[in-house]
Amino acid sequence: KRRAKPSVEDLVSQILKGDITALSRAITLVESKNASHVEKANAIIKSCLPNANNSVRIGITGVPGVGKSTFIESFGKYLTAQGKKVAVLAIDPSSSLTKGSILGDKTRMEDLVKDKNAFIRPSPSGDSLGGVARKTRETITLCEAAGFDTIIIETVGVGQSETAVHSMVDFFLLLKLAGAGDELQGIKRGIIEMADAIAINKADGENTKSAKIAKVEFNRALHLYPKKESSWTPKVTLCSALHNEGIDNIWNIIQDYVKITSENNYLQFKRNEQNKFWLIQTIEEQLKSSFFNNAEIKAALEKQLQLIEDNKTTPFAAADYLLGLRS
Amino acid sequence: KRRAKPSVEDLVSQILKGDITALSRAITLVESKNASHVEKANAIIKSCLPNANNSVRIGITGVPGVGKSTFIESFGKYLTAQGKKVAVLAIDPSSSLTKGSILGDKTRMEDLVKDKNAFIRPSPSGDSLGGVARKTRETITLCEAAGFDTIIIETVGVGQSETAVHSMVDFFLLLKLAGAGDELQGIKRGIIEMADAIAINKADGENTKSAKIAKVEFNRALHLYPKKESSWTPKVTLCSALHNEGIDNIWNIIQDYVKITSENNYLQFKRNEQNKFWLIQTIEEQLKSSFFNNAEIKAALEKQLQLIEDNKTTPFAAADYLLGLRS
Repeated sequence: KRRAKPSVEDLVSQILKGDITALSRAITLVESKNASHVEKANAIIKSCLPNANNSVRIGITGVPGVGKSTFIESFGKYLTAQGKKVAVLAIDPSSSLTKGSILGDKTRMEDLVKDKNAFIRPSPSGDSLGGVARKTRETITLCEAAGFDTIIIETVGVGQSETAVHSMVDFFLLLKLAGAGDELQGIKRGIIEMADAIAINKADGENTKSAKIAKVEFNRALHLYPKKESSWTPKVTLCSALHNEGIDNIWNIIQDYVKITSENNYLQFKRNEQNKFWLIQTIEEQLKSSFFNNAEIKAALEKQLQLIEDNKTTPFAAADYLLGLRS
Repeated sequence: KRRAKPSVEDLVSQILKGDITALSRAITLVESKNASHVEKANAIIKSCLPNANNSVRIGITGVPGVGKSTFIESFGKYLTAQGKKVAVLAIDPSSSLTKGSILGDKTRMEDLVKDKNAFIRPSPSGDSLGGVARKTRETITLCEAAGFDTIIIETVGVGQSETAVHSMVDFFLLLKLAGAGDELQGIKRGIIEMADAIAINKADGENTKSAKIAKVEFNRALHLYPKKESSWTPKVTLCSALHNEGIDNIWNIIQDYVKITSENNYLQFKRNEQNKFWLIQTIEEQLKSSFFNNAEIKAALEKQLQLIEDNKTTPFAAADYLLGLRS
């Protein structure tokens, strides 16, 4: 069977040498819907696996306006100055519509994008969060094989994308602003619970005082949660990405986390659990979508819903009937 | 094809006359795992459907010790005194182990159990919450066909059973105690958000003052949530089930709710949405369990998990492989 060049072998050997062009090409294959591209991508990933799993994976989230781009630029430059190789990826399920609403505009990270030890890739697009997440998760493997030792995954504070990012990183950083008191409430609590650290950004000038108050409040909020399985106590810290203040402290926190969770084996345990999660999740999504996207089922489902509404069948009898159509 | 007596037709006609023996027999068929019983149960339910859907369905939850049994006894007797016919059902997923840990001991509702206008049925047992919930949901239909106009479904404050009950009732009542300040926090918030009313029980004697304070606190907590789709504002009220105080007020609240949501059509809308939920939920559970309980898949899954752990495959490649085994 003939394949288009460059071959899987060529791309893999170039990726392992840290070649960015080969890495980008492989990611494009991962993101493709073309069946032969997908096959090639899977072969590349498989060959890269023995050289992957050796980075620190950091998830970063925060609502629009919190300064994520500025933070990642500042944080990324700090890391490359320490000799790190930094890949910045993203998960944004809305990017299927907007062709990449976060990280799409690389000018937002002007300096980092020029840094030869940094690699920035916008969110893949996709029809489902599961699909987008899979592509990003596979891209992590490729970046690790290419020698990137620090992977940053950005997401927006919307929908389930935080959960997806949380399920593929070692450390989850939540960016916050001071003075946004109502953010302690409602759905945001779930995100606070996921955080290994909360960094209150824009803690500069007039904001300094309210940022310090917010730090106390967030510390109190974090104490409402049960102790984490990792035995890690989430930290709250202040920073000003714009003025490059507090960035070193965040990296110190992450290093402490990695040290503690490496020593108590939680880091590896968590990665295994995450892999199981993605395995089960992918299977379940596929089972559901292949059932409900079947044309015959779709038509029959509409009829059954009408029968339920007319009190002529029950949801359970309708489910049994629909399942019977497939077996 | 011969059937065991009594026939489906006999049971249905007796149920429609309000015969409790026939109702109990039909529920036993619903709860059976025997295939011919299930078939018979489905036929009975189908025949009962045109006479169902005409009750007020009330879910009641609260942690152990809050006084659920005393409350339901007091509330149930109040309702039968008003001329209502009251069925008390339960969802307790743990009952598969304990053979019915809630409502199993009918002596807890001594007076109500003797009331000819009340019908008390312990939680069905089952291997999964989905299975237990299905049996209870189908029992509602039978009770309605037997003329019960008020259905009370009790559950314990554990796990996902509240969500199951919430998905089959019109009105969800949360029983609370005064002075349990920490109950505003953590996982309980999700349950508070589901509540259409919170009744602070044991608001008598020395507890009266702290119950009044709790009422203010819960009212404040409820205001943190967005307005409900029903346009109903959840109410907080005090009661003492032991002294039969405040019970009439709770029934007034429920009647107000039914009036408002009948007029704005939310009641019927919600029942349709609940039916859709159970339909989709049942199908998804069945798709998953038939996949993951397959012996070949089980064995292959173990192997794939090991390959993932050894960095020899990815969760996604493993999922594709496992899905391929079934198609």
